[in-house]
Amino acid sequence: MATFALLAVGDELLDGLVREGNCTGLSSRLRAMGHRVLEVRMVPDEESSLRGALLEVVGRVDFAVISGGLGPTHDDRTRSVLAEVAGSELVWAGEEAERVLSRYEGEIRSRLEGPLRSQLMVPRGARAIYNPLGTALGVELELSGTRVFALPGVPREFEAMADLLLGEGRIPPASEVFARHLLLVGVTEGELMELASDLHERFGVRLSILPSYGYLRLFARCGDPGAIEGYVEALRSVPRLAESLIEGDSLLGEIRRLCAGRFWLSVAESCTAGAISRAITDEPASDYFRGGVVAYSDEAKVGLLGVDPGLLEREGAFSAPVAESMAEGVRRLLGADLGLSATGIAGPSGGTPEKPVGLVFLGISSPRGTFSYRFHFRGDRGIVRARTVNKALEILWRELKALVG
Amino acid sequence: MATFALLAVGDELLDGLVREGNCTGLSSRLRAMGHRVLEVRMVPDEESSLRGALLEVVGRVDFAVISGGLGPTHDDRTRSVLAEVAGSELVWAGEEAERVLSRYEGEIRSRLEGPLRSQLMVPRGARAIYNPLGTALGVELELSGTRVFALPGVPREFEAMADLLLGEGRIPPASEVFARHLLLVGVTEGELMELASDLHERFGVRLSILPSYGYLRLFARCGDPGAIEGYVEALRSVPRLAESLIEGDSLLGEIRRLCAGRFWLSVAESCTAGAISRAITDEPASDYFRGGVVAYSDEAKVGLLGVDPGLLEREGAFSAPVAESMAEGVRRLLGADLGLSATGIAGPSGGTPEKPVGLVFLGISSPRGTFSYRFHFRGDRGIVRARTVNKALEILWRELKALVG
Repeated sequence: MATFALLAVGDELLDGLVREGNCTGLSSRLRAMGHRVLEVRMVPDEESSLRGALLEVVGRVDFAVISGGLGPTHDDRTRSVLAEVAGSELVWAGEEAERVLSRYEGEIRSRLEGPLRSQLMVPRGARAIYNPLGTALGVELELSGTRVFALPGVPREFEAMADLLLGEGRIPPASEVFARHLLLVGVTEGELMELASDLHERFGVRLSILPSYGYLRLFARCGDPGAIEGYVEALRSVPRLAESLIEGDSLLGEIRRLCAGRFWLSVAESCTAGAISRAITDEPASDYFRGGVVAYSDEAKVGLLGVDPGLLEREGAFSAPVAESMAEGVRRLLGADLGLSATGIAGPSGGTPEKPVGLVFLGISSPRGTFSYRFHFRGDRGIVRARTVNKALEILWRELKALVG
Repeated sequence: MATFALLAVGDELLDGLVREGNCTGLSSRLRAMGHRVLEVRMVPDEESSLRGALLEVVGRVDFAVISGGLGPTHDDRTRSVLAEVAGSELVWAGEEAERVLSRYEGEIRSRLEGPLRSQLMVPRGARAIYNPLGTALGVELELSGTRVFALPGVPREFEAMADLLLGEGRIPPASEVFARHLLLVGVTEGELMELASDLHERFGVRLSILPSYGYLRLFARCGDPGAIEGYVEALRSVPRLAESLIEGDSLLGEIRRLCAGRFWLSVAESCTAGAISRAITDEPASDYFRGGVVAYSDEAKVGLLGVDPGLLEREGAFSAPVAESMAEGVRRLLGADLGLSATGIAGPSGGTPEKPVGLVFLGISSPRGTFSYRFHFRGDRGIVRARTVNKALEILWRELKALVG
């Protein structure tokens, strides 16, 4: 196990204009490799701040990774701060600089040889890290016993260059760690604690739990592959967990596996207005997803899905019978094997004492019949919609399991 | 202007399991109030790390805000670290503790008076911050000239308690700052630099730029309201910027304003599969959005939207005539005034040399006629879809402006 500090450079991060993602992503990968991130820090585009942070960090960790500040403008200070701290000067990066240059010609090339030249320089004695996507080279050097990597902050470039570093073994894995992603669909943190609070300790498994709007993502690590297997086995011995457990972290993958070659899906959405369809197609789905209807208005529910206007009038758009009628309607309309539907009140307005904000009905129509489910989700509009999407996918997954048997 | 350091405590942040959001959100509000965040740091659930970070920060900034580590479990170390650094001990928080207790009865109350009691304690001499949503009190105290606030890390609680602090003036605004949010729809950073690179400097405006998949969000601040007006005026004098500028940060707000009482919208989506409809309904839209069709399969394009199968065969699903036919079809089907459509190849598979991944056609049908636009977006599936959604909203917005005149 090696220790890491990650520094993200950029005023936009401290302005709160953008959520830092490079360090979060890298942390997750380093943890999976068995490493330990001791600190993540965001610092402004200012020489003194970056120098201060760097000096506080080097010597305390095995590796430091800096994201950002390598571009061509006056805001980009990482390169010169590294040279200053290393007590050297910036020099042309030679081979790696030529490799970047060779991808360009004409005006871009002459700017890279002229005004944008600084992006292709590194402190004397440092190694240049090739940038396969952009024009700013990364930097690798040693400071006070800490190996320091500086990569561009543009997310695609950061990720591609981190890939290179990990792939080439510049940051080697800690060999003794075994890790497993698990997904508990529709299980709360409270339930997990009640049913299996001490299991991970019994197997010596280090467990990270991430609740996500009705799901729990688990990340289990330990030094012994047998112990991880034992832990998963023990989870499976609890019926409520066994029926909700997916090995891996992809519910969509399971849904596709259950559908493949057997079932076509369709979706009718009111309050989620396309979010369920979008979630199903977060990965390519053209071999099992036929499409859907966004029935945001009553006109669409009646005209497209064939919901009975009398039923709408009598029960209201937010009701179990309307959810069922929408699911049957979209299934029929698209000639699909399953129809999934959602109708409810996402808020912030539109709630009444009888039908408050967060009340949602989900419907499903399948060869087993048509069913509906009632929920009352807490939270703002975005959270109610996110919970509705996740619960809809859970209902679809359970229905597919029941169909496949 | 006051200076701030923000510390977020939690292994889950360093595990990369969750993106830090509390500090990002607070940063954004502090900046809008004219303050300066000098550093954001994430530290693990470990006494020594938090103590180290705190000692590095106090005395250097006016305010420090800590998020997390105030709960009842053994991982929650913030309270005891604050007491230790302050050289005092934890005591019952008196009035604010009773105020939280009074909301509970029965078992929860007896646990709060017993095993969960630690959440209602603060270092002697510190002020307790009331928690309107949960059971963990916050802490306010002074350390080496820095005013330190510790708030629970649960996002809803953090936000509600930060609201209290700002509302009560415990963190007062810097009076001399004027700020303005602007949105440049469909303008790239390169274009802005070319057209107005030095404008903000000329007016003494401090500018943060956040590119977001085809939009630029600008956040402009300065000490003089006249200068901000002058800057916006100067932007407006550049035709390409004037036609793309929205004051404020809500494109949806502009779309609603242009539609209100005039037009009903409808959307037909293939590659985005509901994402455009979802984006339109991120805010309540039932007074102008009728709904849409997710025509992910050719069956849905033909059967529901009435796209001519011969046209599909001849031109392919990813083509301008099909985009136009989809826009007309959904407009007719839903009896709407405008139909917006998207069809293309989000990837990662499905591309060909003639029709590569990222090729997208957007269509719009309105009382002015039916039009289509061709784009080639770079990036992975998620980015192609995000760019498609933003470009579709831009086309809709420009069409509405042309209609309203």
